[in-house]
Amino acid sequence: MFFQKPELQYEVTVDQPDPHFAKLLQQAIGGQEGEMRVAMQYMFQAWALPEEYEEYRTLLMETAAEELGHIEMLATAVTKNLRGSSTEMDTDAREPAAVASMTGQNPRQFLSAGQSAMPVDSNGVPFTGGYIAASGNLAGDLYANVMAEATGRTLATRLWEYTDDPGMKDMLSYLIARDTMHQNQWLQVLETLDDPVPVPASFPQDQENQDVNYTFISTRREAQPDPEYPWTQGETPDGNGQFSYAAEQPGDGNVVAPDPAPMTNNDPNRDTQSADAADSNE
Amino acid sequence: MFFQKPELQYEVTVDQPDPHFAKLLQQAIGGQEGEMRVAMQYMFQAWALPEEYEEYRTLLMETAAEELGHIEMLATAVTKNLRGSSTEMDTDAREPAAVASMTGQNPRQFLSAGQSAMPVDSNGVPFTGGYIAASGNLAGDLYANVMAEATGRTLATRLWEYTDDPGMKDMLSYLIARDTMHQNQWLQVLETLDDPVPVPASFPQDQENQDVNYTFISTRREAQPDPEYPWTQGETPDGNGQFSYAAEQPGDGNVVAPDPAPMTNNDPNRDTQSADAADSNE
Amino acid sequence: MFFQKPELQYEVTVDQPDPHFAKLLQQAIGGQEGEMRVAMQYMFQAWALPEEYEEYRTLLMETAAEELGHIEMLATAVTKNLRGSSTEMDTDAREPAAVASMTGQNPRQFLSAGQSAMPVDSNGVPFTGGYIAASGNLAGDLYANVMAEATGRTLATRLWEYTDDPGMKDMLSYLIARDTMHQNQWLQVLETLDDPVPVPASFPQDQENQDVNYTFISTRREAQPDPEYPWTQGETPDGNGQFSYAAEQPGDGNVVAPDPAPMTNNDPNRDTQSADAADSNE
Amino acid sequence: MFFQKPELQYEVTVDQPDPHFAKLLQQAIGGQEGEMRVAMQYMFQAWALPEEYEEYRTLLMETAAEELGHIEMLATAVTKNLRGSSTEMDTDAREPAAVASMTGQNPRQFLSAGQSAMPVDSNGVPFTGGYIAASGNLAGDLYANVMAEATGRTLATRLWEYTDDPGMKDMLSYLIARDTMHQNQWLQVLETLDDPVPVPASFPQDQENQDVNYTFISTRREAQPDPEYPWTQGETPDGNGQFSYAAEQPGDGNVVAPDPAPMTNNDPNRDTQSADAADSNE
Amino acid sequence: MFFQKPELQYEVTVDQPDPHFAKLLQQAIGGQEGEMRVAMQYMFQAWALPEEYEEYRTLLMETAAEELGHIEMLATAVTKNLRGSSTEMDTDAREPAAVASMTGQNPRQFLSAGQSAMPVDSNGVPFTGGYIAASGNLAGDLYANVMAEATGRTLATRLWEYTDDPGMKDMLSYLIARDTMHQNQWLQVLETLDDPVPVPASFPQDQENQDVNYTFISTRREAQPDPEYPWTQGETPDGNGQFSYAAEQPGDGNVVAPDPAPMTNNDPNRDTQSADAADSNE
Amino acid sequence: MFFQKPELQYEVTVDQPDPHFAKLLQQAIGGQEGEMRVAMQYMFQAWALPEEYEEYRTLLMETAAEELGHIEMLATAVTKNLRGSSTEMDTDAREPAAVASMTGQNPRQFLSAGQSAMPVDSNGVPFTGGYIAASGNLAGDLYANVMAEATGRTLATRLWEYTDDPGMKDMLSYLIARDTMHQNQWLQVLETLDDPVPVPASFPQDQENQDVNYTFISTRREAQPDPEYPWTQGETPDGNGQFSYAAEQPGDGNVVAPDPAPMTNNDPNRDTQSADAADSNE
Repeated sequence: MFFQKPELQYEVTVDQPDPHFAKLLQQAIGGQEGEMRVAMQYMFQAWALPEEYEEYRTLLMETAAEELGHIEMLATAVTKNLRGSSTEMDTDAREPAAVASMTGQNPRQFLSAGQSAMPVDSNGVPFTGGYIAASGNLAGDLYANVMAEATGRTLATRLWEYTDDPGMKDMLSYLIARDTMHQNQWLQVLETLDDPVPVPASFPQDQENQDVNYTFISTRREAQPDPEYPWTQGETPDGNGQFSYAAEQPGDGNVVAPDPAPMTNNDPNRDTQSADAADSNE
Repeated sequence: MFFQKPELQYEVTVDQPDPHFAKLLQQAIGGQEGEMRVAMQYMFQAWALPEEYEEYRTLLMETAAEELGHIEMLATAVTKNLRGSSTEMDTDAREPAAVASMTGQNPRQFLSAGQSAMPVDSNGVPFTGGYIAASGNLAGDLYANVMAEATGRTLATRLWEYTDDPGMKDMLSYLIARDTMHQNQWLQVLETLDDPVPVPASFPQDQENQDVNYTFISTRREAQPDPEYPWTQGETPDGNGQFSYAAEQPGDGNVVAPDPAPMTNNDPNRDTQSADAADSNE
Repeated sequence: MFFQKPELQYEVTVDQPDPHFAKLLQQAIGGQEGEMRVAMQYMFQAWALPEEYEEYRTLLMETAAEELGHIEMLATAVTKNLRGSSTEMDTDAREPAAVASMTGQNPRQFLSAGQSAMPVDSNGVPFTGGYIAASGNLAGDLYANVMAEATGRTLATRLWEYTDDPGMKDMLSYLIARDTMHQNQWLQVLETLDDPVPVPASFPQDQENQDVNYTFISTRREAQPDPEYPWTQGETPDGNGQFSYAAEQPGDGNVVAPDPAPMTNNDPNRDTQSADAADSNE
Repeated sequence: MFFQKPELQYEVTVDQPDPHFAKLLQQAIGGQEGEMRVAMQYMFQAWALPEEYEEYRTLLMETAAEELGHIEMLATAVTKNLRGSSTEMDTDAREPAAVASMTGQNPRQFLSAGQSAMPVDSNGVPFTGGYIAASGNLAGDLYANVMAEATGRTLATRLWEYTDDPGMKDMLSYLIARDTMHQNQWLQVLETLDDPVPVPASFPQDQENQDVNYTFISTRREAQPDPEYPWTQGETPDGNGQFSYAAEQPGDGNVVAPDPAPMTNNDPNRDTQSADAADSNE
Repeated sequence: MFFQKPELQYEVTVDQPDPHFAKLLQQAIGGQEGEMRVAMQYMFQAWALPEEYEEYRTLLMETAAEELGHIEMLATAVTKNLRGSSTEMDTDAREPAAVASMTGQNPRQFLSAGQSAMPVDSNGVPFTGGYIAASGNLAGDLYANVMAEATGRTLATRLWEYTDDPGMKDMLSYLIARDTMHQNQWLQVLETLDDPVPVPASFPQDQENQDVNYTFISTRREAQPDPEYPWTQGETPDGNGQFSYAAEQPGDGNVVAPDPAPMTNNDPNRDTQSADAADSNE
Repeated sequence: MFFQKPELQYEVTVDQPDPHFAKLLQQAIGGQEGEMRVAMQYMFQAWALPEEYEEYRTLLMETAAEELGHIEMLATAVTKNLRGSSTEMDTDAREPAAVASMTGQNPRQFLSAGQSAMPVDSNGVPFTGGYIAASGNLAGDLYANVMAEATGRTLATRLWEYTDDPGMKDMLSYLIARDTMHQNQWLQVLETLDDPVPVPASFPQDQENQDVNYTFISTRREAQPDPEYPWTQGETPDGNGQFSYAAEQPGDGNVVAPDPAPMTNNDPNRDTQSADAADSNE
């Protein structure tokens, strides 16, 4: 159950409105690395957990609610960058610089949303549930969360590098710090699990093919000798095996598909003569 | 540059064709956790790396080519499950059991592909580039790869649990083993990086907000005391801080958006009287 | 800023787990008429409103937080329908009835989510930000909200009609009641606006074409006399005009496109002779 | 059954070709608020109606055919803005102003369509059937239509405000007028239905939860007194109840999911010691 | 400009309603091979053509309007298969056979559309403008049209093979015949163009790389001798060259990317020691 | 099974990095006409073919592997255009010309990928499996391939026309040549099939409606006399019939849908009086 309060989680100020930056900020709202993704991802992961995982479910919901507030902060940053800027939409907009500003904007922020934030990324592509990873397996989900916070923090640092606006830099500095915390948090939670690799842990490992489960299989056209990298020799991180090296893929499976049912009408009206001609070349 | 050979990477046999299993296998081809995703993900990650990262680029391309072969194996498994089954499409298909079999199938495997594999997931949703994570930052990408192999292996074990077919179980046992290897491989590569957390490492951490970068911020409606979990106290995994606990979000930012430009036509024709009535309640 | 509490907004019980109903419930979570849509829609609408619309922004946020709790209720309903059912996944699953049950399920709820809810609709199509309407114009948004609650309530009644489960009927009866409230609420808010039609009200109506702004233009192949419907004669709902009837579309615009730039390589290598032959028929 | 004529419904002229405006116009073709949506929406709504609703089916088809003609007008406007402009693609295109013009364009209008209109929105996102609302319930559909025409007219007025081109302003003035008519038309049709709220009307209202069907439920973190807004007290628009106010969500439902089947491999290999440590904190 | 008439282009009867067939029919409405695609594709192709192509534009619009009528026929077929069937939704629906029927249905046809047709494919995936090919180049578009009618006719024959219903077989027999006509029509139009291959014809062919423009380049891992197929030797269909054979890809390009700007924060905090260890293996 | 080699198929050089051209190149990677599409399309087509089509399967796989190498070339071209350019990201980026350059870029190439290529098109829309055509019918697939290479070559020529960079022109000249070859190749393969039209050839043509299978049906509002085009008279390309002309669509089918089940709650609460009023007008 959720509650709200009409204040922002952290102050958002914009010293110099910049419609182009408003477009870039959309990536952090509705993009693959954005806050809509993590907010919903943590919720769906939480809702999959049974009673014995209560402390994890609580943790996921705690963080989900925080991320909802980040969407709110970023949406506020977007409207503040789009509005109040005296130049981007006025009658001087035909001058080269102003046109550059206007054409650099997401047109839908003006056309569809009246200078507001939207549930889309920085190219205007709508947010999709396809970004969300919630596998039902806590260990796999935690790696998904580390990754989400890692790419999220990378995005935020790139926005920070791009802008010169003190207010925007301050807001991003806050979001970057939260991503630092969340990366650490999910890694720490992984450590409360025993032997988290390979995921899923409950699958009996003796059921997997024992010939190739710790072998680096090279796909180089010309077979190469073992390069003796840390991933072709030595102990594996899961502590269950030793890396080895194979210069060749196992091979030998037959790729040919069976004949389909006549109902499919797959058969082209094959020219017997041409086919023969072709066949005679084989 | 790529090359191919008309053999499969590993043998694929189907003892008892099962059209419904052909539908489920699609998830491992074109789904969020599927092989199209990892094959393309590893390529795009590789292509972003400059010369000094040559051993990593090589590694990513080696693995990408292997994953292309997994798509091929799974596509072969799909056609073998869809075809050669005497019951699913014949004149007895109106009987309850057969109808169940037919209705359990992905209709497009018959209608659009003539009993073949498709670049879609188990619900028939097309593969999308939106599943692919390639951030340009190697550390972030490696976490994405651990996660991709973790959810991929989880998917493969669920398919293994579902099917009774010895040929399918053998193929999945091979794919599960490869996912074990790849999870270990990407974790091992992470260990060749120094201090991989927080990602991105090159961002100067003193630029992030120092008040909240290691603080667990609770979002519970009623403020709670520190639960003293491993993620609210003690050293952080990155070794750069100590977890702390805040019972309240910082708060106090102003959520109000500035007035939009008149050009947006945002203004409703507000009823002054009604508005006053409403206002008088405030 | 958002807060949460580990209780559900309203109790969710399932007397007889039904994996097929778990699939249908997804429509109310991630579908076009679902709760993810309204929760995010109300937020984005709120974040667009400047200070003078404070009571409306508050109202939208109040309702948005409630809808987040509805997603949570439905996700709980999904896991309760998918799990604890002794028949759908066990060794008897090969019998016709059980297969029907299994094949009637969303395969990704098992394969991708380990018997959990997902951010997708009842066909497994991911939620998309493209469902969300937040135009920046409050009047237009309110009609979008009436429509969202109308189609949402229609969906909930269809789920109610379909299920025989008392727990599910009770949960749906709660959600249907909330949709009744929200339909009334948004219509009531519309009444606090003056002359809400046509939207947007701020556009000077004398700038629109005065010949066709209250005319029903028939597109019937054979011109028909005025059918004298309430929408071809009489006063218009906005009170600004009288409906009239035109048996013909205005017509006469020239559809021909200008020649493109040579850079486009649009030109086919047109056969002069054939073209002449064709032209001679004109 | 449909017919066509090689004239436009209304004249389309462009005085000064503007490639950037050609990009913006795409929103009115293939966008969420565009003409492809309404044309198809009205058709699908019409095709759902049985014989007794003949006058409504006729009305929907009449309007659908008109909207097809609007797509044609807008596509013509796009080609006229993209072509015949001497500057946007010529050898001077490297100068700053010209580059601004080119970079402000939708690149696919040149690359994929040879300077033509496309079935995409102003960000180049393809039109999707997910925009279309056709619920089978006429009342719900009519609210969807009012909303579609309201957001469509808002879009058209924003395009009108943006452009200085007399031909484009004239075309938009025509389209704005038609949206005025259609908003009025659908509202008028709603009035031919009895008690259109709540939708769907055929659901027996005594089956909905009687405790919360006219209650405004606050989600504020700190419980607030009744603000006495028109939506917390007084008669409801459907005439069936009185608004009331609840400062608290009902609450008390249990969010915990049941245990999943072992087949899902949901179990992480949980560290008993760590778990105990965590548990001891609870 | 479009017109309509309330009759169907061809009669649609259903002898025995079949909800599962209603699901399959959706592929012919909103699928990749469906009628929404061709209707819109022909329109957008037409709108790109300048005056000198008038007979082609007319032809495309003539056919587009016919295809709109095919959507209408199929939507009618869907409602007739979903409704009037006494068994699929009644109280006996819990019996195995009936459940099979229900679970075989597209759930959204009931939940979202009240037993009506939808703008989606047979898996419920919404129609997308991404299916539409309209390149601005008439010759390329005509090949797209031949292909669209070929896959469309293949789909229709598969539906014809699947159903036993005389009414449905008759409707499909009509649609199959129209696809025969349209395949022939587009091929015939191609013949009115001179040298339609390679597309685009206006590009000066001497600007393309002359070493590989008629060479079959093998990608086999082990170099193979020329198999002497019709596509490795002999005259080419465009009459401009002779097929030749190369056992090897040209090769030799350098895949390494330049260093990115520091602003991207691409650099992982690379462990110099580990890197050295790795490097020492090279 | 696939193999790789760390060289490019063909050299890729960029003389003058151009971030805007990096954006345009994305269309050839992840766009509707791009290389990801053909690479995967040829694979899925190949995997559907049974043993008797071995030479075709081989051919498709040979070409698929080549196309994978084209993606690699284009991705390299993108990074070379994005990086090493001294102006687009430096401190002077606030000047009009530089801003124009930056705003002309795909923001995600910087924000999401750290100045790298992405699996998206030139508008940033992710690649989708919905672009791929693989029908199971070889003849239909070959037309799809001709079309894919025709639109692909058209795209490549437009990129060639746009850029002045000698390195880019050389790379595109190579890709254009390969498209010339592949168009010829697929057409040549079509000639090895007998009577490839109409597709599918295996469907007994006497089962299609014999009245309309070679008739051009006009949809003009006012009936026109036979224009005597090559597609309204004369022999048809398949050699099985004679084109004829019909000035009218067959017509006479009844569009009315049956009544839906009460469970759908389709019924609006219709105002009997209003309905009567409306009816009295009919």
